[in-house]
Amino acid sequence: MQSLQDKASEWSGVKREDAFAIDEVNLFQKLGLQTFVTLSTKFYNRVYDEEEEWFRSIFGNSKKEDAIQNQYEFFVQRMGGPPLYSQRKGHPALIGRHRPFPVTHRAAERWLHHMQLALDETPDIDADSKVRMINFFRHTAFFLVAGDEMKNQNLQTQCKHGIQQSAAP
Amino acid sequence: MQSLQDKASEWSGVKREDAFAIDEVNLFQKLGLQTFVTLSTKFYNRVYDEEEEWFRSIFGNSKKEDAIQNQYEFFVQRMGGPPLYSQRKGHPALIGRHRPFPVTHRAAERWLHHMQLALDETPDIDADSKVRMINFFRHTAFFLVAGDEMKNQNLQTQCKHGIQQSAAP
Repeated sequence: MQSLQDKASEWSGVKREDAFAIDEVNLFQKLGLQTFVTLSTKFYNRVYDEEEEWFRSIFGNSKKEDAIQNQYEFFVQRMGGPPLYSQRKGHPALIGRHRPFPVTHRAAERWLHHMQLALDETPDIDADSKVRMINFFRHTAFFLVAGDEMKNQNLQTQCKHGIQQSAAP
Repeated sequence: MQSLQDKASEWSGVKREDAFAIDEVNLFQKLGLQTFVTLSTKFYNRVYDEEEEWFRSIFGNSKKEDAIQNQYEFFVQRMGGPPLYSQRKGHPALIGRHRPFPVTHRAAERWLHHMQLALDETPDIDADSKVRMINFFRHTAFFLVAGDEMKNQNLQTQCKHGIQQSAAP
């Protein structure tokens, strides 16, 4: 069975070592907190003004300010800064926390479209950092598509066979 | 609705700020790689020799060496060391990767029982580090119980109403 990260690499076209090249430099030290706040603000300004209703509606139950804070705190934590996300919300648990949302191939591409434009609109992100971030985002978006497909496959199997109760007595 | 981390705190008895007190010191620098290797080896030696078959069987499809490596690489990455886990396997995605397993309250307590003994058997873990690690492990174990219950609730709801296909066209 193909692993989550193998699927993510195949679908995104980004090798794992390129996706995690964000760890070879400390992007938080290089770019600073405000750059991440700006990036997430520009990203969600786009998403909440999105003309494609099917994509915009995925975020319909979240306040924009919360979405911005969740995102930049995760980015800061993952890219070498203080663990802001975990201090406030616990483990990132990327697949678990995306479970309510339909993370399809098409949704991943749309997310990446807006993120690419948000990166281009954010001053002070040098070319090298931008490549590292895009590779990380692209791999991660398709990692979550793989997580979503796993969820749907499990649902189909388990609904067919009846819900298995826990194996523990 | 109670969040994952609120459930984790309630069930574990560990506040989030205590669970993530691992981030106030760099435990990897303090303890070193070998301590984490030893801890995970002692932990899984116990688990694979476990007399309780219901618990041992949860790990029945994994090789012990792989389980040990996955665990210490995650601990090293999460506790201030190099991102060994992500370089090899991608995002930790704790809830997503535990999806195949029945992470019940009872399983969490049994996991913690063995981990407490493994910590006690690992030399060179000072008392302060041990408290931080136990709080982190305890909170995380029940975070995964919360993730498991979310999975089962979604299964029950969605099997009842028919499997919802993705909202994206």
